[in-house]
Amino acid sequence: MKGLDGLFTPRGVAVIGASRNPAKLGAVMARSLSTYGAPLALVNPRDPELHGSVAEAVDSLGAPIDLAVVCVPAAAAADAVAEAAKAGASAALVCAGGFAEAGHPEYQRALVDVVERHGIRLLGPNTSGFLVPGRGLTASFVPSVASVPAGGVAVVAASGGVNHALSFLLAEAGYGVSLAVGLGNAADVDAADVLDHLVVDPATKAVALHIESVADGSRLAGAVARLSAVKPVVALVVGRNDVGAFAKSHTGALATSWRTTRGVLRQSGAVLVDDERQLVDAVGALSMIRLNPGAVRPGVGLVTAQAGPGLLVLDGLRGAGIRVPVLADETQRRLGEQLPPMTYQANPVDTGRPGPGFGEVVRTVGDDPAVDLVAVYALTEPDSVDLAAELSPQIASTPTVVAVGGSTADVTAVRSGLHERGYPVATSPAALTHAVRALVEDACLNQRRGTNEPLPPVAVPHGPWDEHQAKTVLDALGIHTPPRAACTTAEEAHAALDTLGSPVAVKILDATILHKTEMGGVHLGIRTHADLQEALDALGAERVLVERMAPAGVDLIVGARRDPVFGPVVLVGLGGTTAEALGDVAVRAAPLSVAEAASMVDELIGRALLDGWRGGPVLDREELATVVRALGQVLLDSPRVDEIEINPLRLTRDGLVALDAVITGKEQ
Amino acid sequence: MKGLDGLFTPRGVAVIGASRNPAKLGAVMARSLSTYGAPLALVNPRDPELHGSVAEAVDSLGAPIDLAVVCVPAAAAADAVAEAAKAGASAALVCAGGFAEAGHPEYQRALVDVVERHGIRLLGPNTSGFLVPGRGLTASFVPSVASVPAGGVAVVAASGGVNHALSFLLAEAGYGVSLAVGLGNAADVDAADVLDHLVVDPATKAVALHIESVADGSRLAGAVARLSAVKPVVALVVGRNDVGAFAKSHTGALATSWRTTRGVLRQSGAVLVDDERQLVDAVGALSMIRLNPGAVRPGVGLVTAQAGPGLLVLDGLRGAGIRVPVLADETQRRLGEQLPPMTYQANPVDTGRPGPGFGEVVRTVGDDPAVDLVAVYALTEPDSVDLAAELSPQIASTPTVVAVGGSTADVTAVRSGLHERGYPVATSPAALTHAVRALVEDACLNQRRGTNEPLPPVAVPHGPWDEHQAKTVLDALGIHTPPRAACTTAEEAHAALDTLGSPVAVKILDATILHKTEMGGVHLGIRTHADLQEALDALGAERVLVERMAPAGVDLIVGARRDPVFGPVVLVGLGGTTAEALGDVAVRAAPLSVAEAASMVDELIGRALLDGWRGGPVLDREELATVVRALGQVLLDSPRVDEIEINPLRLTRDGLVALDAVITGKEQ
Repeated sequence: MKGLDGLFTPRGVAVIGASRNPAKLGAVMARSLSTYGAPLALVNPRDPELHGSVAEAVDSLGAPIDLAVVCVPAAAAADAVAEAAKAGASAALVCAGGFAEAGHPEYQRALVDVVERHGIRLLGPNTSGFLVPGRGLTASFVPSVASVPAGGVAVVAASGGVNHALSFLLAEAGYGVSLAVGLGNAADVDAADVLDHLVVDPATKAVALHIESVADGSRLAGAVARLSAVKPVVALVVGRNDVGAFAKSHTGALATSWRTTRGVLRQSGAVLVDDERQLVDAVGALSMIRLNPGAVRPGVGLVTAQAGPGLLVLDGLRGAGIRVPVLADETQRRLGEQLPPMTYQANPVDTGRPGPGFGEVVRTVGDDPAVDLVAVYALTEPDSVDLAAELSPQIASTPTVVAVGGSTADVTAVRSGLHERGYPVATSPAALTHAVRALVEDACLNQRRGTNEPLPPVAVPHGPWDEHQAKTVLDALGIHTPPRAACTTAEEAHAALDTLGSPVAVKILDATILHKTEMGGVHLGIRTHADLQEALDALGAERVLVERMAPAGVDLIVGARRDPVFGPVVLVGLGGTTAEALGDVAVRAAPLSVAEAASMVDELIGRALLDGWRGGPVLDREELATVVRALGQVLLDSPRVDEIEINPLRLTRDGLVALDAVITGKEQ
Repeated sequence: MKGLDGLFTPRGVAVIGASRNPAKLGAVMARSLSTYGAPLALVNPRDPELHGSVAEAVDSLGAPIDLAVVCVPAAAAADAVAEAAKAGASAALVCAGGFAEAGHPEYQRALVDVVERHGIRLLGPNTSGFLVPGRGLTASFVPSVASVPAGGVAVVAASGGVNHALSFLLAEAGYGVSLAVGLGNAADVDAADVLDHLVVDPATKAVALHIESVADGSRLAGAVARLSAVKPVVALVVGRNDVGAFAKSHTGALATSWRTTRGVLRQSGAVLVDDERQLVDAVGALSMIRLNPGAVRPGVGLVTAQAGPGLLVLDGLRGAGIRVPVLADETQRRLGEQLPPMTYQANPVDTGRPGPGFGEVVRTVGDDPAVDLVAVYALTEPDSVDLAAELSPQIASTPTVVAVGGSTADVTAVRSGLHERGYPVATSPAALTHAVRALVEDACLNQRRGTNEPLPPVAVPHGPWDEHQAKTVLDALGIHTPPRAACTTAEEAHAALDTLGSPVAVKILDATILHKTEMGGVHLGIRTHADLQEALDALGAERVLVERMAPAGVDLIVGARRDPVFGPVVLVGLGGTTAEALGDVAVRAAPLSVAEAASMVDELIGRALLDGWRGGPVLDREELATVVRALGQVLLDSPRVDEIEINPLRLTRDGLVALDAVITGKEQ
């Protein structure tokens, strides 16, 4: 068996620690597994009516056992897995808790030892298992999860509980599951392994990824990138707030930085969501349709049978920055023939109740050249129109997602008709909004995908690096800095004032001082030699930097540092204490493409400041991308540099200028 | 009939414009109304088999007709309502569109004329109607809405479509409806009318309010305040983003300021939500339990049967600023006896699957002195435990809200058992989070409710008001300003520098200049007479203000202005362009209580800056409340003042200081 096939398509399964007491974990697991088509061996050496060992079961069944489901306490788990491996099993599932998460890392190490010795793949420990509904395979101690139908969504969850909760919520929303896995402590099989498995799993159309912590950032990022290139991935990352103590008790791992994890996942092509309902909205829709990545910023045509809910959707789409373009004159002309005159037809298109001809309206909107995706909202009115029949598959040559409201029975019937015709279906305005956002976001991420445009190697001279030396590094990278002179005498400083032109800033030059301003090491707005001398006297420093002051503008912070999980990462944020207090920072892993770097500012909540706020300068995103990529390259090429930061990087009418720079690291 | 009783509990109903063609609105409406117990008259003068008029129907039925449901086109609606009124009807529902929203204000005026002439109450036009499930009364042209069960939630929606969508979503979530109304154009009956009706409606336990626009702000605020004093109100306000053109086409009304509407609704006691799913989560929970308003900041005990979903809930609660306090030692000791040792017991409490004794754990957590509300999450495992039976009503002396995950069938069964026992039930971690947030928020709002602590009248002298005069007004209000002197000669300015102490700011004094800084009218940091003279020469002004510079700190903006809908309102925001670009402002109507004013900064997203950010000063919220209330009082007492703004109001270690102030308005 290759990869995880032994785990997810086993030719035979053994339950080790099986029991005839129906309340025991081993009995519950055996009940869950009884629907699977392959031979099932119940193993318990202390029960003479069950198999005494996996080897004995293989002999007596005359069939291979690929998967051992281990239902014994933590202390006995490693031996049980080893025994199964010796009997030919290529995979094991260990459900029990009581390992690293509960203060027993030695039991977990023992499991890892067995994995390394025998090459067996191990899911868990500390998980409720997995399910493959399309094969009737329920390896879970929650037997009712067998009711989840087969379908196109794979769930890869850090937690067994979340795996089950998501599977149930997907079923409730009318979607089925191809594979749903709870990773638990991930002693061996981790998210990256399962994501790689899903790349070639034909049943999986889209993937829901739930992340609590990350052990190996670049491995995860690589797996997400490989998978999202062929199938949409939607990610929910836990830990925006301080949940560390409880999280550690849960899986034994420290929480990863929420912001960095999200940034890197987005960079790898994953659509991000904020909660499990949005996850279901997003991955459900993406399991049925995926937009062509051609459109730089896809346009959405919104057709609503009721104005009020349509207004909720429009408000949500605008809030998510999604384009709802005014429809072409020709489209509006055709709509004018299809709809009563008092309805709104520019986009949104309000039909005033769903009725005969509703499908034609949807087709007309989809035909508009500015529309890449049609979003439809309608309350079901089974008495007056069959919504599913109106929306025949040929109606929508443009991708279309539909939301229906109504009684549970009506919605279920209409939804199933729409699903048969290939339409993803949401059941409320917010659900539709999140589905549309995910479809658009996936297309945008896909559009950015591509070459990494490698940069030439960067050589950073030995430290320590004072501001002048740090800026000399920036100069070599092609990043603009103000004209400046490092001066060791007053004469040099006065000469610099004449050469540079006023006003100038005078700053102490000392690599050991990280916060010059706070300790009075910066004098600004100096225009005269008298003022300069006063500043020099006040500083009393051996070396000063005399620098021409930059014009006013909007301050950014750009930096690169080493993340313990993701390696070199780059950061972009707005300057000022408000932005700092908000933690309003975009993060990516280095290296990164121009398009990726250029996209970073668009997730800052203060981004309006960068696009001509109150007549101010407009950011050239490619220019910023050059700066960001260069800083990332410094860390990639210079192991001795721990961190490089430009704060502020000022956006002026003449472009970006680095007003201060700090490099820290090992000097040699 | 008093108030809206004729509308919602009519003794007889007439459908005007009834039809025997089942596809016509009049026929659909008659079908909907056929389940209501009172006499139903079908009126259509053009159909000899139906009643020719309402009067004739009253005669022939021998029963009063309180409600006329008018299913005729817009042009004929007013006459139909007038006819019904003459025949004794005290209420009318006009469903048709084609009025103000569609460019025919004359038809709407005609309806209003009839209302004023006859005293009849009119719902609509341009609405799909209302329903009272407890009485079998479905006055809606969506007959399937009759499947919505009776229950404790009232829906008051701007839009008929949203009214139906919400009713269906509530039913889907397991909650029933007492009354659900779509207001449409609200030519007569508006949200305030219905809210007042609900104050004494015994079936209504909590109210869902959907707002698209507000015609009379103080009328709405008053109605929400009266209602929320006795029953929880949850409000969803549309129009955060630019949806104006479509909104206007929908109801004919311009969109109200989203931020102001939200601020005033919160001030009036309404819990705010961001979408219709949160609305259902919130109002469903609040229809079953309401926290005692005693706790200033209620503490939540979280019990989860699965760690992963519990972590999602904890992350959400922390993000909403909700307290999840560490449980008392005694509580943890008792939990230690009830739970296996490896589970987390400090709060959250992780039971590791639901099982026998789960209810005891919930009770133990609820008994903790720091816990005002228990939130429970569990995946159903019908094989191992009956969750509803575990949570007997007596288990929870502390208010408790439960979320259950599982198959639709299992969840429906468990939910109904829990509802019978008095527990609100959510079905996902996010739903639980929003339910808890609403319960806590309602208690906090309730806690703030109370006296308005009136202020003494404020007398503002005639304008125009330059900075000195504006600050003199602030001085009279007890708001701190820096020591200053208004000077008309250089000698006075130099004397002021000596008296005030350096550094000083020198600013031009001219009431006609609103942006002094931008036009070079401000010189800062002046310490010497030479610098002062240079500044005076540069300003060349007839009057200048010499003012001692304030210490560094965090800048706020506080103001009061007249809102066209809500009258005098006060605003608090953070200074700086980032905050401005975010529109991060809290708004309330004046007058407002100390507690209300003190709460305003807590909804600013940059609020962390005000609580000792990086060792900086901590805001005294009551001190800020004094400033905010005083500015509001200026507008209440001085009709000639249009706006008063302090920008910046600086938070220093010594408290708040107004560094600049502007008053605009009519000078006399």
